[in-house]
Amino acid sequence: MSTDDRPPARPRPATIRDVAKAAGVAVGTASKALNGRGRLRDETRNRVLLEAERLDFRPNDLIKSLLRGRTFTVGMITTDYFGRFNMPVMSGIEDALGAAEILVFLCNTRDDPDREWKVIQSLLAKQVDGIIVMGRRTDPRPPIAIGRSQVPVVYAFSSVEDPSALSLLPDDMHGGRIATEHLIDTRRSNLAHITGPSDRDAVRLRRAGFEATLQDRGLAIVEDHILCGDWTELWGYTAVRELLQRDPKVDGIFCGSDIIARGVMDGLRELNRSIPNDVAVVGFDNWDIIATQSRPPLTSVDMNLHDLGREAARHLLAKLEGEEISGAIRLPCTLVVRESTRASTD
Amino acid sequence: MSTDDRPPARPRPATIRDVAKAAGVAVGTASKALNGRGRLRDETRNRVLLEAERLDFRPNDLIKSLLRGRTFTVGMITTDYFGRFNMPVMSGIEDALGAAEILVFLCNTRDDPDREWKVIQSLLAKQVDGIIVMGRRTDPRPPIAIGRSQVPVVYAFSSVEDPSALSLLPDDMHGGRIATEHLIDTRRSNLAHITGPSDRDAVRLRRAGFEATLQDRGLAIVEDHILCGDWTELWGYTAVRELLQRDPKVDGIFCGSDIIARGVMDGLRELNRSIPNDVAVVGFDNWDIIATQSRPPLTSVDMNLHDLGREAARHLLAKLEGEEISGAIRLPCTLVVRESTRASTD
Repeated sequence: MSTDDRPPARPRPATIRDVAKAAGVAVGTASKALNGRGRLRDETRNRVLLEAERLDFRPNDLIKSLLRGRTFTVGMITTDYFGRFNMPVMSGIEDALGAAEILVFLCNTRDDPDREWKVIQSLLAKQVDGIIVMGRRTDPRPPIAIGRSQVPVVYAFSSVEDPSALSLLPDDMHGGRIATEHLIDTRRSNLAHITGPSDRDAVRLRRAGFEATLQDRGLAIVEDHILCGDWTELWGYTAVRELLQRDPKVDGIFCGSDIIARGVMDGLRELNRSIPNDVAVVGFDNWDIIATQSRPPLTSVDMNLHDLGREAARHLLAKLEGEEISGAIRLPCTLVVRESTRASTD
Repeated sequence: MSTDDRPPARPRPATIRDVAKAAGVAVGTASKALNGRGRLRDETRNRVLLEAERLDFRPNDLIKSLLRGRTFTVGMITTDYFGRFNMPVMSGIEDALGAAEILVFLCNTRDDPDREWKVIQSLLAKQVDGIIVMGRRTDPRPPIAIGRSQVPVVYAFSSVEDPSALSLLPDDMHGGRIATEHLIDTRRSNLAHITGPSDRDAVRLRRAGFEATLQDRGLAIVEDHILCGDWTELWGYTAVRELLQRDPKVDGIFCGSDIIARGVMDGLRELNRSIPNDVAVVGFDNWDIIATQSRPPLTSVDMNLHDLGREAARHLLAKLEGEEISGAIRLPCTLVVRESTRASTD
């Protein structure tokens, strides 16, 4: 820090007055030239534009915002750290809003209600046009407190207890269905499901998709073949040993996450079961670094979170235009097939 | 969308006029009461504050910003997708700026120079107080084009060709040093280094740290023990087989990334080498999901990227206060010790 406490003067940015003066025209004329309005001789217009360029003149968005009553900014709130699931959602949101020339404020509330309240006050004071709330998981949360503000709000990868709110979520049940259908379609008939904590919405729904598909395809639901635990590799590794003791003839395993699948595959390898010839494995998340680098590479359900972010942004823009939308919208998953389920005869 | 194309009128937010009218006082009096200035009877002040509360009155930051010449906003530019390395840096930046009541615009330029130019124009039009540029890797990039704007810029986890610019980077050489020192301190004497592409700054510096430490500790640098390849698990898996053919007596491996270390550990297990008893392994990145879930858990170098983000924000704030800082600042790494290097006798 310099000994003089006052910051040095920064050169003042050029104003429209400077441009008009340099071009030798009235301020009104300069304004017409810069906004492409009114009748002006080409020579005059060009002179103004040239001076604006030379002086690096930039119109001040703050003034425009005050006049138009819109700031072309949106607040994006994450309730937790910037994690693996938020990342692609954020990227999709920024993508869609950037295309609409809207800039995004990024705020992290760290699951702290006081901090959340403060962040929302700041966003409202900055006159954001809308707010998108992201979660770390999809279990319902209370709505954010925006007081009497009428600012549109969308929940992305985050559901909310208020039925009049709009939230966008992956269709976990559909994800469970396509994983199970794929195992049956690749000639597996004795299936198991190793997954995360049984009290989570995502676990409940993926399991429901698994069971509904077995029923639809005339296969029995075996209670012993469904193991709930943690979202860890160690749990997958432990659970698959337990599973094969209960029934050595299991030939297909749908895992609740790629991390669990990774542990399951390590366990199978140590039990000398070939993947996919003896046992086929499907994961959930399609987490690139895990799914593609597994041996063999892992077939996995993709929640299309980037698209979910884009959709959340599009719905916010629609709300800004006055459209009334509410409720939970569930977006389809897709299956990415890799070697862990490809039958050797394929 | 409703059939009527015009958006429905949204209730107008309360203005200071509405508050004054509701409290039965002049606008000037209301302003004094809300700003805590001037002399007013307690009863009057309280009536104004009560009405402001009831009407959900929010002062408009845009007007304040115009008056103060500062917007309390900062632009944060990522040159690539929101990745594994950006995430903690972003989180640290948001953390430190949030504490200073500054909101952060998040912009992704997707490595596209046209898009970067547009994003910078938008940020300057929004009158941001400063810009932080993040990279996906630490190899030098050209400075961003801010024209004649005097807005302060800091590069975080991103270095720049312009020596007058300020960039904050992890000290990769220091990281290489502490990894190697730890292997030697845990009684390993025949060390190897399996790492990423040899043309990357991070690879060159980590290797330099490895070699300098061997020299300092009186150990030979064996060219055959240094293998450069890709940042993949498969490369680690392949390289460790090659390495042990070249020299079966290697007892410690410093890996250029956790992903590579993961492949190295898989390879060692299949070659029936016990970790850490036969061979100790150190990774780089301290990527939680990889390092903690490996078997055994992986000792790894942490670049402290959250702290790096915080430091970048602090330096930006100092620049805003007029401090003149430039050059590349390298921040120390730390070693997180886990089972992959703990000698069995410990």
